[in-house]
Amino acid sequence: MNLVEQLEYLFNPRSVAVVGASNTFGKWGFDMINSALATTQERKVYPVNKNASEVRGLRTYQCVRDIPDRVDFAVITVPYQQVPGIMNDCVDKEIKAALITSGGLSETGEEGAKVEAEIVSIARRGGLRFIGPNSMGHFNTSSDFSTTPWIPQVKKGSVGLISQSGNCGVYILRCGFELGIGFSKFVSSGNEADLCLEDYLEYLAQDEETKVIIAYIEGLRGGRRFFQLAKEITPKKPIIVMKAGRTAGGTKAARSHTAALSGSEAIHEAMFRQAGVIRVDEVDELLDVAGALLRQPLPKGKRVGILTAGGGFGVLATDACERLGLQVAPLSPATIERLNTILPSRWSHANPVDTVAAYLDTFPCLWPLMDDENVDAILLSGGVGTAAAVPKLDGVPLSTMEEIKQILKAREDEELRNWDLAIERMDRDQKPIVVLTMATSAFKDLETFNKLRENGILIYPTPERAAKVLAYLAQAGEYLGISRGGQAEPTC
Amino acid sequence: MNLVEQLEYLFNPRSVAVVGASNTFGKWGFDMINSALATTQERKVYPVNKNASEVRGLRTYQCVRDIPDRVDFAVITVPYQQVPGIMNDCVDKEIKAALITSGGLSETGEEGAKVEAEIVSIARRGGLRFIGPNSMGHFNTSSDFSTTPWIPQVKKGSVGLISQSGNCGVYILRCGFELGIGFSKFVSSGNEADLCLEDYLEYLAQDEETKVIIAYIEGLRGGRRFFQLAKEITPKKPIIVMKAGRTAGGTKAARSHTAALSGSEAIHEAMFRQAGVIRVDEVDELLDVAGALLRQPLPKGKRVGILTAGGGFGVLATDACERLGLQVAPLSPATIERLNTILPSRWSHANPVDTVAAYLDTFPCLWPLMDDENVDAILLSGGVGTAAAVPKLDGVPLSTMEEIKQILKAREDEELRNWDLAIERMDRDQKPIVVLTMATSAFKDLETFNKLRENGILIYPTPERAAKVLAYLAQAGEYLGISRGGQAEPTC
Repeated sequence: MNLVEQLEYLFNPRSVAVVGASNTFGKWGFDMINSALATTQERKVYPVNKNASEVRGLRTYQCVRDIPDRVDFAVITVPYQQVPGIMNDCVDKEIKAALITSGGLSETGEEGAKVEAEIVSIARRGGLRFIGPNSMGHFNTSSDFSTTPWIPQVKKGSVGLISQSGNCGVYILRCGFELGIGFSKFVSSGNEADLCLEDYLEYLAQDEETKVIIAYIEGLRGGRRFFQLAKEITPKKPIIVMKAGRTAGGTKAARSHTAALSGSEAIHEAMFRQAGVIRVDEVDELLDVAGALLRQPLPKGKRVGILTAGGGFGVLATDACERLGLQVAPLSPATIERLNTILPSRWSHANPVDTVAAYLDTFPCLWPLMDDENVDAILLSGGVGTAAAVPKLDGVPLSTMEEIKQILKAREDEELRNWDLAIERMDRDQKPIVVLTMATSAFKDLETFNKLRENGILIYPTPERAAKVLAYLAQAGEYLGISRGGQAEPTC
Repeated sequence: MNLVEQLEYLFNPRSVAVVGASNTFGKWGFDMINSALATTQERKVYPVNKNASEVRGLRTYQCVRDIPDRVDFAVITVPYQQVPGIMNDCVDKEIKAALITSGGLSETGEEGAKVEAEIVSIARRGGLRFIGPNSMGHFNTSSDFSTTPWIPQVKKGSVGLISQSGNCGVYILRCGFELGIGFSKFVSSGNEADLCLEDYLEYLAQDEETKVIIAYIEGLRGGRRFFQLAKEITPKKPIIVMKAGRTAGGTKAARSHTAALSGSEAIHEAMFRQAGVIRVDEVDELLDVAGALLRQPLPKGKRVGILTAGGGFGVLATDACERLGLQVAPLSPATIERLNTILPSRWSHANPVDTVAAYLDTFPCLWPLMDDENVDAILLSGGVGTAAAVPKLDGVPLSTMEEIKQILKAREDEELRNWDLAIERMDRDQKPIVVLTMATSAFKDLETFNKLRENGILIYPTPERAAKVLAYLAQAGEYLGISRGGQAEPTC
């Protein structure tokens, strides 16, 4: 069996044993059996527990060996001292793959490392591959199989996530839920005693359901292998990583957390750059960038056209772009001339283009910017979701309210039509569009919000976040040699 | 009349004229009359409009001079060319203060600057002080008077906001609404042709309802006055600013936005530091820091105790603290000994203190950290709002669900009791506590969330944001000479 075949048993098992399954709320064994049972798929689930006769109404087995059928996959959630014994049982039963949640192993010192080595050696003997120990679970949305508790309903989608921290992984999934981003696979890789980040990376590289790979990394066991893999993958699938342990204290903390060897910061930085891996600064940026890369074209350069319905955001967006190495493009004379015919004479006559609070001018101004050869990407603020930005209306007569409702509906319809055009242009002209809006919560109720989300146009709440995404897209484009007049071919 | 007396007419007028008032949705005059009328206070509101006989069911006047009663304050929302004439009328009517929303003045060039100068000279002649032009409104929650449309219901509170950008101001108010932060006063200062940021600062300094002053700044007209004022204010009231125009492009954009002169970046930076002004990097940080300063004690130093229920966040928090110049405090031997009695033997034995997913250990571990003389502040992650972090429960029997509900209720009750103690300790020991949680949305439904909010403990979604707030608190403490063994007296 090659690695991919082995990992199929992890991500799509036909039968599962949950060792340590429990009816007691608060125990991992309770969460794990519930997660395994919460599926719409045909899958046999066998609770294993020496001290209970039934769990969740199912008869339990004293030992995996007692299960009468074949078992593909075992979840092991027992105190760490018992794991070697359980692993022996699993090997005897010819189980192909497992996930170990138990902590107290190599991350705690020599004593735990010894037990962990024993577990590995038993598993190797039986050809069993496993996630963990010290894992918070994994899932596969296409087979509807999950061992991860404490997460909201995960949307099926194309982002694959590998996390060397369970709680950071769960955090990313929660943020994804709120941003509306769908996931294909997830692994909390724990101590990586057997399967490591590079293995999951190799698997996700060939997984057709995964279009973008993101990872939270504390330390790499196989730096050279990571580099080789990443170099092969990034021309076809983007890899975005958040690498913790940038500081001396962080490195030390990472070691005690997942026994990770953080390694030299400079080496990592160079490796990521040379392999075309996008390295972000903060956990939540993983999703900002992944969401954009799922759908947006890569820009041909770093020249941004900023279109805003208010000056302050224009100033902040300019600051953010310049700080991040993007250019606020000087507009072509033809563009200025066209904008002169749309905007009142007092407009800024330069980039950022400020429609001076005239949201209705947003789209008419967008087309000249899309046409301008000096502009590689658009940062759009204001004029989006305007139907949600309603002034105070206390005491306004009912008839007026009715009229306003109709105006807002017409406004939204027009915006939707404009977005259809904008999305078409985005693809055709290969110019990404990122959007920021102040209309936060209320905006989420609009149809526009869904349309944008479906088309990979995420709504960023601050100019900094929006500009950062454009900077990362430009970085990816540069790596792949997508430049003005150039070919969309990898250069490294 | 001194400045404060003059500004009282702005913030608490007994009678208001809205020049340009309109029944047409989409016009400023519609928003302004609605805002002025949306009040629970006794206040006379007079619509002024040459082309309408009634607005919102009220009879209109052709001119402010025709209003039979005294008028304290005028909102002027007409095309800029008409503003000098209206200002003449206001002066004739002996109106004390005004707000001008009209744009197209000094921010657009020489022609507009001329008209603006004329407006100023007319107002000066009559002793009338005004906000704007190019303002997006202002409000005072204690007098329930607002001229700011497009904002959610503002909570009455103690943060005073001055913004040189209307849309950034509105954005900050919206973020504040979502964070549950209350405001005292707000001004969108616009072009500052007459009243400028320094005037509002002087007013808020003496305003008893304002405990923390925050400002979005594009450029200062009176740098020396700002410095003198800030130096006097910051020992008594914190001032937090976000200054845009850090880059060359940003400076240029600011000039065309509000005609602001951004000035030298280095001079601003030094001035803020020497005057004890906290300068934040991004707009949303204004509120993160304001919320903390409203209630949290200033720490005596930069040594942070990190308490986490999961390793990943511990690593990220350590990285963030060290990057921001905070120290991850080495714990005293006594603390380690006490933690040994609480945590399983495999705990990290160092700061960050990882309870290894045992959320119930969070508070028992917090007390030793509060007692430790090596710790000046606490960054708490996990073990908070645990009643909202529920695992998958599909298919769990109803009786178990009932049991779980009771367990969660007991868990929340215990957490609430623990927070009472923690808040008491926070004040007594002068050690601020910042919290980050993954339990995002669901957490907001808990009673715990409200208790924390009421006590100025905001919930930050990322380790970076939480650490940043501690760094700013430490900076403020350092400026005021609140050091270990020192007095809480300003040192500059």
